[in-house]
Amino acid sequence: MDKLLLHVGPTTIKEDILIAGLENNVGFTSKEFVDAFSYSLKGLRYVMGVSKNYQPFITPGGGTSAMESVTSLLKNGDKVLVVSNGVFGDRWEQIFKRYPVKVKVLRPSPGSYVTPEEVEEEVQKDNYKMVTLTHVETSTGVREPIKDIARRIRDKVELIVVDGVSSVGAEEVKAEEWGIDVYLTASQKALGAPAGLSLLVLSPKALEVLNSEESIAGYYLNLRNWLPVMRSTEEGKAMYFSTPPVHVIMQLAEAFRLIEKEGIENRIKRHSIVASAIRTGIEALGLEIVAKRPESYSNTVTGVVLKVVEPSKVLSETINEGVEFAPGVHPAFKYFRIGHMGWVTPNDAIVAISVIERTLKRLGEPIRFGEGVKAVQEYLSSAR
Amino acid sequence: MDKLLLHVGPTTIKEDILIAGLENNVGFTSKEFVDAFSYSLKGLRYVMGVSKNYQPFITPGGGTSAMESVTSLLKNGDKVLVVSNGVFGDRWEQIFKRYPVKVKVLRPSPGSYVTPEEVEEEVQKDNYKMVTLTHVETSTGVREPIKDIARRIRDKVELIVVDGVSSVGAEEVKAEEWGIDVYLTASQKALGAPAGLSLLVLSPKALEVLNSEESIAGYYLNLRNWLPVMRSTEEGKAMYFSTPPVHVIMQLAEAFRLIEKEGIENRIKRHSIVASAIRTGIEALGLEIVAKRPESYSNTVTGVVLKVVEPSKVLSETINEGVEFAPGVHPAFKYFRIGHMGWVTPNDAIVAISVIERTLKRLGEPIRFGEGVKAVQEYLSSAR
Amino acid sequence: MDKLLLHVGPTTIKEDILIAGLENNVGFTSKEFVDAFSYSLKGLRYVMGVSKNYQPFITPGGGTSAMESVTSLLKNGDKVLVVSNGVFGDRWEQIFKRYPVKVKVLRPSPGSYVTPEEVEEEVQKDNYKMVTLTHVETSTGVREPIKDIARRIRDKVELIVVDGVSSVGAEEVKAEEWGIDVYLTASQKALGAPAGLSLLVLSPKALEVLNSEESIAGYYLNLRNWLPVMRSTEEGKAMYFSTPPVHVIMQLAEAFRLIEKEGIENRIKRHSIVASAIRTGIEALGLEIVAKRPESYSNTVTGVVLKVVEPSKVLSETINEGVEFAPGVHPAFKYFRIGHMGWVTPNDAIVAISVIERTLKRLGEPIRFGEGVKAVQEYLSSAR
Amino acid sequence: MDKLLLHVGPTTIKEDILIAGLENNVGFTSKEFVDAFSYSLKGLRYVMGVSKNYQPFITPGGGTSAMESVTSLLKNGDKVLVVSNGVFGDRWEQIFKRYPVKVKVLRPSPGSYVTPEEVEEEVQKDNYKMVTLTHVETSTGVREPIKDIARRIRDKVELIVVDGVSSVGAEEVKAEEWGIDVYLTASQKALGAPAGLSLLVLSPKALEVLNSEESIAGYYLNLRNWLPVMRSTEEGKAMYFSTPPVHVIMQLAEAFRLIEKEGIENRIKRHSIVASAIRTGIEALGLEIVAKRPESYSNTVTGVVLKVVEPSKVLSETINEGVEFAPGVHPAFKYFRIGHMGWVTPNDAIVAISVIERTLKRLGEPIRFGEGVKAVQEYLSSAR
Repeated sequence: MDKLLLHVGPTTIKEDILIAGLENNVGFTSKEFVDAFSYSLKGLRYVMGVSKNYQPFITPGGGTSAMESVTSLLKNGDKVLVVSNGVFGDRWEQIFKRYPVKVKVLRPSPGSYVTPEEVEEEVQKDNYKMVTLTHVETSTGVREPIKDIARRIRDKVELIVVDGVSSVGAEEVKAEEWGIDVYLTASQKALGAPAGLSLLVLSPKALEVLNSEESIAGYYLNLRNWLPVMRSTEEGKAMYFSTPPVHVIMQLAEAFRLIEKEGIENRIKRHSIVASAIRTGIEALGLEIVAKRPESYSNTVTGVVLKVVEPSKVLSETINEGVEFAPGVHPAFKYFRIGHMGWVTPNDAIVAISVIERTLKRLGEPIRFGEGVKAVQEYLSSAR
Repeated sequence: MDKLLLHVGPTTIKEDILIAGLENNVGFTSKEFVDAFSYSLKGLRYVMGVSKNYQPFITPGGGTSAMESVTSLLKNGDKVLVVSNGVFGDRWEQIFKRYPVKVKVLRPSPGSYVTPEEVEEEVQKDNYKMVTLTHVETSTGVREPIKDIARRIRDKVELIVVDGVSSVGAEEVKAEEWGIDVYLTASQKALGAPAGLSLLVLSPKALEVLNSEESIAGYYLNLRNWLPVMRSTEEGKAMYFSTPPVHVIMQLAEAFRLIEKEGIENRIKRHSIVASAIRTGIEALGLEIVAKRPESYSNTVTGVVLKVVEPSKVLSETINEGVEFAPGVHPAFKYFRIGHMGWVTPNDAIVAISVIERTLKRLGEPIRFGEGVKAVQEYLSSAR
Repeated sequence: MDKLLLHVGPTTIKEDILIAGLENNVGFTSKEFVDAFSYSLKGLRYVMGVSKNYQPFITPGGGTSAMESVTSLLKNGDKVLVVSNGVFGDRWEQIFKRYPVKVKVLRPSPGSYVTPEEVEEEVQKDNYKMVTLTHVETSTGVREPIKDIARRIRDKVELIVVDGVSSVGAEEVKAEEWGIDVYLTASQKALGAPAGLSLLVLSPKALEVLNSEESIAGYYLNLRNWLPVMRSTEEGKAMYFSTPPVHVIMQLAEAFRLIEKEGIENRIKRHSIVASAIRTGIEALGLEIVAKRPESYSNTVTGVVLKVVEPSKVLSETINEGVEFAPGVHPAFKYFRIGHMGWVTPNDAIVAISVIERTLKRLGEPIRFGEGVKAVQEYLSSAR
Repeated sequence: MDKLLLHVGPTTIKEDILIAGLENNVGFTSKEFVDAFSYSLKGLRYVMGVSKNYQPFITPGGGTSAMESVTSLLKNGDKVLVVSNGVFGDRWEQIFKRYPVKVKVLRPSPGSYVTPEEVEEEVQKDNYKMVTLTHVETSTGVREPIKDIARRIRDKVELIVVDGVSSVGAEEVKAEEWGIDVYLTASQKALGAPAGLSLLVLSPKALEVLNSEESIAGYYLNLRNWLPVMRSTEEGKAMYFSTPPVHVIMQLAEAFRLIEKEGIENRIKRHSIVASAIRTGIEALGLEIVAKRPESYSNTVTGVVLKVVEPSKVLSETINEGVEFAPGVHPAFKYFRIGHMGWVTPNDAIVAISVIERTLKRLGEPIRFGEGVKAVQEYLSSAR
């Protein structure tokens, strides 16, 4: 079989999803497209766990543009608290620094996460308009307990924003029940579609802010400009603000179709089993995982710490063995990442550990050869 | 054969281009992708008519985001002159209004264009940092004489920016020879690839401004953040700022491959022949074209003015006849648009006029039935 | 748009049909395949106009293997009457000469057809076990009046066999009502799927012969060997005789899905309109058609006779103009063929005539330039 | 990742091969097709290990039609020796029984094979025109030592025919060096293309027989009718006998391109490693393999004998685990088959054994759980 892409996004995509973009005569006012777009908006509500009270947005871009578009909800001088567990948490700060807002950042020790208590304490100290959280930090695979934090701070800040780029479609997300105002993600992660789209849902309160106040946002990333397009499209009527990535949206619609067919609970469970299988294998080999605290293990990304061998060497060798992993990006660790999201299966976990085990042995990393695959096999046999 | 999409973008796409996006295991650090991205950057120079002195950018988004990203070259208080012949010229003003710059807009009467003399006169009145021009105004199909304007104002302003969204790949573009600092386009227009990408080239002077000065731009649309990615990728080394639309770039690379195979001169000539054939047919039917002055006819968009029938009625009826046209968007005219760009052929011109002729007759628009197709046939017979 | 293939099969295929063959993990016992095969057997009954009394067969091969497989119904010494209007009628004789049967052939003058009266007269002269007819002779485009012949000879011969290779899916076919015992076709013709499959339906009487008598047929083309596979598959259970072209059958199933969506009556009407449009255009140019008698014009193939220019020259030149026609194969005429079947549209008729008109003018064939396209346009305007 | 098809053909196909059949306007006289056909004929010589002295044939059908087409080389009354190790060896007898030739069959005990000595002994007893051998018996996975047999009987019979359906592309084949007159295969097996094609090469002697003598063959399977097509096509000129499966041949050409890129020696080695890995795993689990004698293990098919559990139960359960195996077809064993051919990789071996191990444990088959995957992992680590 072809190479297995266990990157952090895009990852291996189901062929049916790519095929959905093959129609060579679909324009942005064509019925096929408007239907696919409308369907995708509804599908986005489904994976976010929200009712029609929430407004979905699907716009050109990716995770970063989705993050920056929350400036649509900010005014000159607003205070924002950024809770950052790594590279992508820090990105919030880099974005806000380009705008006239005041930013405070909370950070944990590397591999750990900012606790709900720490967040609660901080929001009580100052008058924050917005708190941003990162559900799963892609650089480390560390998961933040969103639900618990939201419960604690819900009444103490105006807007809670969650970066769900590496979580939506693979972790439990109940944006409405938890009281999140903006939950955002990108198409190429756990939704398993091609890259090219930002996806967000806004709570009624966020929508009110969007409608009522003049923001600091620019033009293209300003959700206010896209709002009429989303509303009109959902009702089946094409509307123009700026040309959307027509074919990627056709593909996203197919991804949502397959997600609904699988059922979001089954999908989350599948991700959980594969993630556990992979961590079980890595630990059986005697290797360390970047995420330090088990309750923060994620369903989507596992960082593997190496003692001896250079991670880049592992990456190039494993490609030759038919699996492509992702490099590490956090400066505090010598590691590589296994992305296990989208359409990943238990068989992929077996292949991943088998290839890592054989490659690390060959390259001279001290591991317990044979124990990795054995442990995965035992886990899968019992987990079913 | 399937429906013919003669919209203003996306338009009918060659199947080989869509197929280039079918690989289901390509990530943003995969060799196939880095090669395709690198190749596309070189291809962009080719269609823009620039040497290695110019820096190409391919970023997620579309025409509007490409436009907004020129804020990367502006500082607080800069003066910008916008030369607008319609909806997309006006868009420059809407964008700049979100930023702390001073904007002046020049406008012609509807269907006409701001003349080189008018632009020259205006730049002499004030101290403009930047002038923005629209090569072909997509809303009307009116073409601006870029070369002539550039010659007149080249030494009088710091930065000349051209929106080539509806021209690059179908009209003569010599960005370097003409002395243009920023020439921009989008993937889904005359390059004939799927939507989802902004494409720009920057002159050495623009690049110097980008590197030296802190701009008013935000984060995601800030070209300064993307510059290292473009440079590294062109040299064959993956680099991350924010995940690009991997599969759309794979497709764009195939489009560039086909464009180079055809040759840009042949490609422009083909567009010119098809555009002339379509206008010949429309005029032979006794209908008026939105663009009022023949020297401003474009190779890519023809607006067709109707006297009696509602344009929306024409659009829905012609879809049933197998051709999808674009609605008009300029409030000054009752019209629809024929997009003839990308992979359009003389046979498509015949089909377009044949379908328009039969549909308008049936709907009761006063036309000279039979004269349209006849005129196209005679033109094509002589034009070859 | 891409090249238009107006050949006699394969002809231009709808992209959705080809796409249906993209699944890379479907085997001959896979559920997806068994479902597609079962669906296709039912679809074959639909286009043949037969009830469940008739047994459908879909086997590897094409028109010729479908023809040869009727040897499954013949015994040593049987007498067969072949009614041949051209190359493919004569093929019956070539096939039967390889077997121990007695063959008599009836032929008309070139461009004409054997009349029902002539067939009736002949069957009364001798004791024929089987009569073979060719519904539309692909080499000339001449149509035989099957219904009338069947009415006259139905009670005078045991088995009536019709080669519907160039008719099924585009001409009226009522195999059961007309009392035909074997109606056969191939996948790449008017059904508009890729080549690779023989398709036949057998009447209860033919099935009885197949079951009861030891035939002269070989092994692979012996329908008796395939019968259990067809029956088991239709009931949803995989069964093996010899590996079928799995992916082509997946594609055929999609073709049948689209045929049912269009409706067979609408499909025949569409073919009739396109065929009339093309003939109208050819005649308006002052050119002759191979089929001499209007009642024998077919919906699928038009032979165009040339006076001056070499047909091969026309074929190579029109490919450069974006349309591929078929060469002539009947030695009695200097001609080329237009295949207009499968997914052909009125717009294709316009393109065909437009390209022929311009090409013949350039090559020096004496035609009435401009009259062809004009006549098609007028016909289409009134035919709608 | 999608389901893994480890069937005996079609098996999992590389997406690029299926994609090669997507062009919707390729006819049997189109240049793209003629080029692909010509290229495939040359590729067939490559995998068969023959020079231009041998004539390749690619015709519609599959393995069985390829077998039956050797009747093109037989006359009334000829004697044929069939060496059969199972179901597909016996098929030769079933075919020849439909023709006026005399057939003698040699058979071994189930799971074993007819030895070279036994074949040599038999050909010395009678005057055989033709001997048929089965390189790898698909029903059991037993491999016959073709080279040795050919060496012994080469001078004692006129024509040696080898069924290489489950060997060509995965086992060493040197048809010319070994002196084989007809080596045949099908597209969907170890060549890794879709089903729908018979492939054969004929030695100069076989070609002489084909040309000089009137055979007992019918019409469609008569290689004499296809010979001019093969010769003309190889020289780049379209020629018609009966419409070939155009799109399948486009796909086959892509398969040959990938085979040449890999190199046939590397390809055979890859198959050998995967086959050894799978057998190692099966044996470590404590299960028996159908092929009784290690020197007859094949690179392509492994039959797995079960003691307790019903094979059909294993097949349906493993599909749910993402792998589809093939049922057994030889009545002497209670077994299922693993097809490991085409594009199979060591990772597929790991997945296959992992899934079999877990499934058999769950179903209650007595196995040494954990030992299978462990043994595969150790084998792969040392085999590299």
